[in-house]
Amino acid sequence: MTIPAAKDKPLFTPGPLTTSLSVRTAMLRDLGSRDATFMTAVKETREKLLEIAGVSQADGYEAVLMQGSGTFGVEAVFSTFSPPAARWLIVSNGAYGDRMAKICRTLKIDHQVLACEETQQPNLAEIQQTLEQSKFTALAVVHCETTSGILNPIEEIGAIAAKQGITYFVDSMSAFGGIDFSLKNCQIDCLVSSANKCVEGVPGFSFAICKRELLERSIGNARSLSLDLVDQWQVMEKTGQFRFTPPTHVILAFRQALAELEAEGGAAGRAQRYRENHQTILAETRKLGFTELLPPELQAPIITSLRYPTHPNFSFDRFYELLSERGFVIYPGKVSRADCFRIGNIGRLFASDMKMLASALREVLAEMQIPVPLN
Amino acid sequence: MTIPAAKDKPLFTPGPLTTSLSVRTAMLRDLGSRDATFMTAVKETREKLLEIAGVSQADGYEAVLMQGSGTFGVEAVFSTFSPPAARWLIVSNGAYGDRMAKICRTLKIDHQVLACEETQQPNLAEIQQTLEQSKFTALAVVHCETTSGILNPIEEIGAIAAKQGITYFVDSMSAFGGIDFSLKNCQIDCLVSSANKCVEGVPGFSFAICKRELLERSIGNARSLSLDLVDQWQVMEKTGQFRFTPPTHVILAFRQALAELEAEGGAAGRAQRYRENHQTILAETRKLGFTELLPPELQAPIITSLRYPTHPNFSFDRFYELLSERGFVIYPGKVSRADCFRIGNIGRLFASDMKMLASALREVLAEMQIPVPLN
Repeated sequence: MTIPAAKDKPLFTPGPLTTSLSVRTAMLRDLGSRDATFMTAVKETREKLLEIAGVSQADGYEAVLMQGSGTFGVEAVFSTFSPPAARWLIVSNGAYGDRMAKICRTLKIDHQVLACEETQQPNLAEIQQTLEQSKFTALAVVHCETTSGILNPIEEIGAIAAKQGITYFVDSMSAFGGIDFSLKNCQIDCLVSSANKCVEGVPGFSFAICKRELLERSIGNARSLSLDLVDQWQVMEKTGQFRFTPPTHVILAFRQALAELEAEGGAAGRAQRYRENHQTILAETRKLGFTELLPPELQAPIITSLRYPTHPNFSFDRFYELLSERGFVIYPGKVSRADCFRIGNIGRLFASDMKMLASALREVLAEMQIPVPLN
Repeated sequence: MTIPAAKDKPLFTPGPLTTSLSVRTAMLRDLGSRDATFMTAVKETREKLLEIAGVSQADGYEAVLMQGSGTFGVEAVFSTFSPPAARWLIVSNGAYGDRMAKICRTLKIDHQVLACEETQQPNLAEIQQTLEQSKFTALAVVHCETTSGILNPIEEIGAIAAKQGITYFVDSMSAFGGIDFSLKNCQIDCLVSSANKCVEGVPGFSFAICKRELLERSIGNARSLSLDLVDQWQVMEKTGQFRFTPPTHVILAFRQALAELEAEGGAAGRAQRYRENHQTILAETRKLGFTELLPPELQAPIITSLRYPTHPNFSFDRFYELLSERGFVIYPGKVSRADCFRIGNIGRLFASDMKMLASALREVLAEMQIPVPLN
């Protein structure tokens, strides 16, 4: 058996993220899934999620938890909210937009992909034209594409969808809780995010926040028993329980994470820390000569993509390894047409962590005999 | 905020179960999903699962982990292992057999249900005849139906399936790790169980143990992106990573649970403790005059179903509540035609826990003014 270090490496990744010890400690309890304490935790969690989303049950919104990773939640949306005549327009500028299309292909749901460059926001006029050219029943877009770290204009796209009177789905996986926005202002019918992103819980479930009216008219659509958001919602409303075994410990951690999010000032407060993290790593890496993939106006404060140094001594694998040896975990790039790596700004990380990472970057470049500032 | 008690109530339920503190403490770490330590944990977990199943990769078996609850794993089996011409015979004597049929109906997979009484084992001759009467490609049965607690004859059914040359799937959710059996002897092509049952981990994923040959000939079958066992297996083999965010903390707990299972003497050792638990609660409840739903020869040592006292003062809700107040969580019955409640014998429970539960039962009956021994 290996003895773990006193402190795990901070995770500068898009998730799973570094969480607080108090969030993890909440998992030390064994509660039955029908236990009153557990059912209260589930109820409070659902209510608090609506609160963060700036909506309420009285406004006609519902929060539905779904076991599995974020992708399970996204698949559940397409499975549940696609009646037989559904036709989706999927606006994609990255791997997560493309994944929505893959889900539609697998589930044999009619759809069209409007693909944009990974480093550009979708063209609003093009979305409008595409919707006018042929009949669509729904539109889907990713909020923050962690492929590049780009922030998509969900409010503007929502206005277009609303004008067409079609269902609007936002995959806000890596943004919800870390960017302050309103479901109402963005005219979102359904949003999905996951436990282990900006709420800073641990991975094990995702959640959908949707209009009740959408749930009510989607009865019987689902192409899956497990990934049926309507059935999950109806049974939860009726019994307070999950249909199938919930990840009890992960949910207790999430409840604690929600309390800590509230203590930080909600999504607005947390967004401020993430922006500070992003600004700090940006200032530090610019000193080293790194350049950013995205112009500042397109950049979400969630994840920062930096281009590889052009120096012939640079090898990403070695760079990654040397950073990891120093206790810093970064993430490889995911953009198709540019060589870059990614630094997550989210999770239980602070400006001081970003500064320590920058010191490690400087050391690693020196060890690789790559002079700074990079050119 | 409520302050939790020093010790959570022991869970005499079919799961989530009481786990050891060391299993829960393993969740205090944050590891990245691409981290070498985490990937090693996944690799070791998959190897150890094959070991418990009495098989190995060299024998042609593979273990595939799947995010979500046990039902997600069962649905993944039907989704992945049903080619277009598939036709399943589902042998059902309870709610979990019926759930497999519901999955087939939802996924529009051709199937026939051979329904048996919930308190009887399936009739082998009838299975044989049904298979001979029309063409089936696969057969599915639940190992231990927690509806009643009955143990199904998976070895005998496996011999029938093998003679017909059809795929044999066993839902061993509540039995794997707590009953000593061999996949080879039972001629099982695929088995599913979950993290929070007899291995005594916490809930958050399920796993399938299947013949590699079955995986290889099932490419492209899946009706779901998330619940595709082949894709999950192939990516895991190629990269050592999950396709979509894994429940990292739950997996670390599971690795610890596997080590504790091994220390207890594997499935054989654990089965002995569970049998002792079952025998203890049986002896004690008999003293109080309770009667068992099942005859001993049909009873798995997993969960014990007891009939309601016939005394007019008995109300299950009050009974449950009074037990819960004393710190004991039991489970309502699930059998359609008999009024009974259930006592789980699995999880981190010992004969001493069963004796304490029996004392509480006696106290609660006294408080309800129901004389013992019951008649």
